[in-house]
Amino acid sequence: MKYTEMNKSQLTEEKERLQKEYDRMSALGLSLDLSRGKPGKDQLDISDGILSCIESADDCKTEKGFDCRNYGLLDGIPEAKKLFSELLDIPSDYIFIGGSSSLNLMYDTVARAMLYGVFGSDKPWCKYDKIKFLCPVPGYDRHFMVTQSLGIEMINVGMTPTGPDMDEVERLVAEDETIKGIWCNPKYSNPDGITYSDKTVTRLAKMKTAAKDFRIMWDNAYAVHDLYDEGDTLADIFKACAEYGNEDRVFYFASTSKITYPGAGVAVFAANRNNMSQLKPVLAAQTIGFDKINQLRHVKYFKNAEGILNHMKKHAKLIEPKFRLAEDILERGLADVGIARWTKPRGGYFISLFVSDGCAKRTYELAKGAGVVLTNVGATYPYGLDPHDSNIRIAPTYPGITELEKAMEILVVCAKLAVLEKLIAES
Amino acid sequence: MKYTEMNKSQLTEEKERLQKEYDRMSALGLSLDLSRGKPGKDQLDISDGILSCIESADDCKTEKGFDCRNYGLLDGIPEAKKLFSELLDIPSDYIFIGGSSSLNLMYDTVARAMLYGVFGSDKPWCKYDKIKFLCPVPGYDRHFMVTQSLGIEMINVGMTPTGPDMDEVERLVAEDETIKGIWCNPKYSNPDGITYSDKTVTRLAKMKTAAKDFRIMWDNAYAVHDLYDEGDTLADIFKACAEYGNEDRVFYFASTSKITYPGAGVAVFAANRNNMSQLKPVLAAQTIGFDKINQLRHVKYFKNAEGILNHMKKHAKLIEPKFRLAEDILERGLADVGIARWTKPRGGYFISLFVSDGCAKRTYELAKGAGVVLTNVGATYPYGLDPHDSNIRIAPTYPGITELEKAMEILVVCAKLAVLEKLIAES
Repeated sequence: MKYTEMNKSQLTEEKERLQKEYDRMSALGLSLDLSRGKPGKDQLDISDGILSCIESADDCKTEKGFDCRNYGLLDGIPEAKKLFSELLDIPSDYIFIGGSSSLNLMYDTVARAMLYGVFGSDKPWCKYDKIKFLCPVPGYDRHFMVTQSLGIEMINVGMTPTGPDMDEVERLVAEDETIKGIWCNPKYSNPDGITYSDKTVTRLAKMKTAAKDFRIMWDNAYAVHDLYDEGDTLADIFKACAEYGNEDRVFYFASTSKITYPGAGVAVFAANRNNMSQLKPVLAAQTIGFDKINQLRHVKYFKNAEGILNHMKKHAKLIEPKFRLAEDILERGLADVGIARWTKPRGGYFISLFVSDGCAKRTYELAKGAGVVLTNVGATYPYGLDPHDSNIRIAPTYPGITELEKAMEILVVCAKLAVLEKLIAES
Repeated sequence: MKYTEMNKSQLTEEKERLQKEYDRMSALGLSLDLSRGKPGKDQLDISDGILSCIESADDCKTEKGFDCRNYGLLDGIPEAKKLFSELLDIPSDYIFIGGSSSLNLMYDTVARAMLYGVFGSDKPWCKYDKIKFLCPVPGYDRHFMVTQSLGIEMINVGMTPTGPDMDEVERLVAEDETIKGIWCNPKYSNPDGITYSDKTVTRLAKMKTAAKDFRIMWDNAYAVHDLYDEGDTLADIFKACAEYGNEDRVFYFASTSKITYPGAGVAVFAANRNNMSQLKPVLAAQTIGFDKINQLRHVKYFKNAEGILNHMKKHAKLIEPKFRLAEDILERGLADVGIARWTKPRGGYFISLFVSDGCAKRTYELAKGAGVVLTNVGATYPYGLDPHDSNIRIAPTYPGITELEKAMEILVVCAKLAVLEKLIAES
């Protein structure tokens, strides 16, 4: 029976029953964590081979005989560019291989725009009194940290099942010249697991922007991170933008953080020739080059795009059961009482749970009291403020399956209790 | 006999003799390079062991059991901080381990100062109409590229055998509030191979600066890169500055680019707590962390500071003969005719040759004509402008010993010809 249909005594009775359950669970003194969007140890172990695929000087040469141990090749070794070109279907000369962190490439890209502007800018972005970025919400807290750190104002735009609310996006970018960018995590978005529809990609590509130097920050973090054999498909943002003469608009990011190792992967940046012609001189001032031996490790280990795709199937095998378990527990515990909705992603790293408005923070506190750490409520919104106090990001990959089960059971009880408290107080 | 003491016919005769020699050398169609300040293949080979010291998951844990394959440890693994703390005699909590490039850390540090200011700044440096850096000359072209790229005006300060001309430095920083920093390559400086005297370090530490947020960019690139058992000693910049209450003034940089691999080393940044308290939040927005497995490789391979120092002796064994050969050829070819002076460094990667004023560019052209590539004349000065057209940076480490010999012989002939042309024209 839906809680909203219960009378006060029914609500109170239900609350007392759940309170007992909560007290019993709390008494177990558990310490569980649903907040960490990182691979489990078992996932890291499947990449073991990459550690030993370069063992001596002879292994350090590119096909053309370039010695990766020494200086040179600022934009990455040709083999690595080819590998990611094939994997992401991006022209090889659009690709720049960075260090181990795509977040670092994103930060540097926005910081560079602040200091130099981008291709087509009248002036560096820091010369404006204020510039703004659109932030589809809920979204990735690290994107919001970058923009906040650099003093860029963030404007919330709602997410829909097909991506950002494009009516809103089109309206905003058309009227405000100081809106310089939008954060996009277009496939299996963090935290909702939503993949942008072809229509959404087309609208992003063709929309008229008041700012002639507007940029789409295309963080394709989960490009090949499917949970099922049949993965979501994402339209090609470069091709779509090129069709409307807006290819300069795209800054593209990806990495192997959740393919090989978060702590020692390879990050990728891609942009068209116009953007690269503006970026390269700055990159040349910034460094002589990134770690080429680690790039070569990835090339030798995977050989080609197919090698990566087969590798991703092993990841899916390990984490898909965790997603299913988490979703089953949410279904069993929350479907009937009608106090929450949640996403059922077909890839990526998160499940997004929305409890009744005003109940997320309380759910977090209750869970904490029972030994379950959740992602900070609000973290999925700019400035850490969830206007509805409703969204909870669930990260099921890192805990073991039994911990995950316990943690999810507790989460369900906490969500119910939080909502019951509110309903009783209001009734 | 000194060229300056020759009469016109003697000069002409000498020139004709050398012209024949030059033509003979040019006819050989050689292709030699003295411009690349990078390790030779033989130097890279001595680090082979580092490629195989991490081969499986079990090798990826820190002493405390942290899994370096996964996210975390923004400022580096404790073992790596300890290793460099020991090697550079810097407190462990002053140290931040970056990616593979210290130049990247330097660029980021100045870019961050432009965007946020530094600890103690009234405002971000980009909010000034113009700020300036002092550049001891000749110096490292990559330092100049960073400041030029970020729109910072560069002021030349002459180098002396004990470091920058401190009378000039003290005068300038005392009077101009917009002078925010000075580039220092304090041990075996690039290109002169000069190590700052204790007195110079003390004066840098105690000098009064009009800018309260002045910074010393202390690029200790050759901290342990001695050619001889008895290396130069450099005073401790942190201790010196602390003594005068100016410890906030120091941004310290180092790397293993010329210890292990330029293409896959580990870079180090160090600063005191005040600076770190301002930096850490920005670094946290920039990345989740740098490659920890490569940090661990360095720790496992070297074990401790002594391991690195012993390793450096192997480098010295390989490159010291190249420096001696180059210096001998300069001595034999140029000492008597009195048209040039050059440095005799006890470490680092370069020999600095100063030919008669107005003759460096011509020497470069002649060398090029004979198949020898030299570092671009002017590269060792801001904006690529050597006011005396005199300095030529010689990098003897990369070529094999026989190529080096040929190239140096040609360089000597070219330098003589260039000066003779000038003297004849003037006589």
